[in-house]
Amino acid sequence: MQQAIDFFRQNDQFANHCGIELLSAEPGKSHAKMGIQTFHLNGAKTVHGGAIFTLADYAFAVAANSHGQLSLAINTTISFVKASSAGTLYAEAVELAKNRRTGTYEVSIKNEKGELVAQFLGTAYRKDETLF
Amino acid sequence: MQQAIDFFRQNDQFANHCGIELLSAEPGKSHAKMGIQTFHLNGAKTVHGGAIFTLADYAFAVAANSHGQLSLAINTTISFVKASSAGTLYAEAVELAKNRRTGTYEVSIKNEKGELVAQFLGTAYRKDETLF
Amino acid sequence: MQQAIDFFRQNDQFANHCGIELLSAEPGKSHAKMGIQTFHLNGAKTVHGGAIFTLADYAFAVAANSHGQLSLAINTTISFVKASSAGTLYAEAVELAKNRRTGTYEVSIKNEKGELVAQFLGTAYRKDETLF
Amino acid sequence: MQQAIDFFRQNDQFANHCGIELLSAEPGKSHAKMGIQTFHLNGAKTVHGGAIFTLADYAFAVAANSHGQLSLAINTTISFVKASSAGTLYAEAVELAKNRRTGTYEVSIKNEKGELVAQFLGTAYRKDETLF
Repeated sequence: MQQAIDFFRQNDQFANHCGIELLSAEPGKSHAKMGIQTFHLNGAKTVHGGAIFTLADYAFAVAANSHGQLSLAINTTISFVKASSAGTLYAEAVELAKNRRTGTYEVSIKNEKGELVAQFLGTAYRKDETLF
Repeated sequence: MQQAIDFFRQNDQFANHCGIELLSAEPGKSHAKMGIQTFHLNGAKTVHGGAIFTLADYAFAVAANSHGQLSLAINTTISFVKASSAGTLYAEAVELAKNRRTGTYEVSIKNEKGELVAQFLGTAYRKDETLF
Repeated sequence: MQQAIDFFRQNDQFANHCGIELLSAEPGKSHAKMGIQTFHLNGAKTVHGGAIFTLADYAFAVAANSHGQLSLAINTTISFVKASSAGTLYAEAVELAKNRRTGTYEVSIKNEKGELVAQFLGTAYRKDETLF
Repeated sequence: MQQAIDFFRQNDQFANHCGIELLSAEPGKSHAKMGIQTFHLNGAKTVHGGAIFTLADYAFAVAANSHGQLSLAINTTISFVKASSAGTLYAEAVELAKNRRTGTYEVSIKNEKGELVAQFLGTAYRKDETLF
């Protein structure tokens, strides 16, 4: 598991570019966070949907790849329920189901007060290759 | 319309952070592009789903706000159909429907060869406030 | 609450046509079931995605309207994770967030063994009118 | 192609239960319709989201299986843009992309006036088995 955590921390350049940190991972689960910075904002001065999505998608990717089998996102949906403009956002990814070829994951994005900011549902395709 | 274009170009800091450029906009439509850079890549050395989503979400936001009424994303779905690792990605957003309170938009993300990379469907909530 | 339950039981003709039963409802929540019948099957002899969706959408509608304010589905996503061909399917709807104008709901569809069959995420628009 | 059309017309019992008719199909495409009947209505006297979804999902299934390879829905999203209470609804499914294992399809649901009622985006998993 530590190998997968190190892999994501070192190799996911876009997550690093967005200031996202992986907090923990275990089989089928992950936690990540993103401290809100000025570059995360959109024209309305709230965190851009793309930044929130990237945080959710990253937590999803870590959870989906946590079994060591290379897994790629096929389809993802995100519902935005609350705007944020400062503080830290937290992502928690959980595996809902896993078949031979696909896996289904749910990610909740919350703010520091524990309020739901966005809810994400994602499906991954599991390839024959391993992650490393 | 030029006012809306200038607004997005100057004020969407996350789009700028991701290297996204607005090419054109007209009522209910927009075009944007993102030249792939190293910081866009994920651990598999392909463009991160979060970067592709951000490009689509930005084109969606411009099209949804093109009527001058402040519009916020409620829900978005993206299907990833082809991986990319170099070149430029293009987003084309089109308005499918617009009611008093909601608008529905479709965004296609294509590569330089015109091949579909991702398809996005988004719903925006239209507030009473104007964009400016 | 009993008034809303009676309303849905008596007036949702398509749910009745599909053999769906409302088991319980409370503010922001609902439970429903659908005993699988031959008419629910698709060409592959498994329960049609449309029947599973209808069960989920119904539970979503009851939960979204449980506060007495008329709520209409704007956008819904469903991930199908396991095929079913006999027995009973159960839907459990939970409210994730509620703002003045929109509400976000999650519905899990499980079989008799408690295995996840499908996961649903839905957004409702809350009108000024009341349900009755 | 006629074999696939006959297969869906005869074997999709839930589509028949819902009064859905397949109008035409060709590789990657299909058209279907549903004449609105009383049993399609929800408590608000408009066509139930589940009935609209079933029409879209059916057109999606026909288009996805039109190549003769057994294809199953993994994930689908539908945005509802206009309520309907009478007349006929038409579905048009188009293949956006097809890989070895997955296919992406878009379905538009329109009323008799050609107005958009709902927009659907679906991903199918393509199995090794053939449809027949």
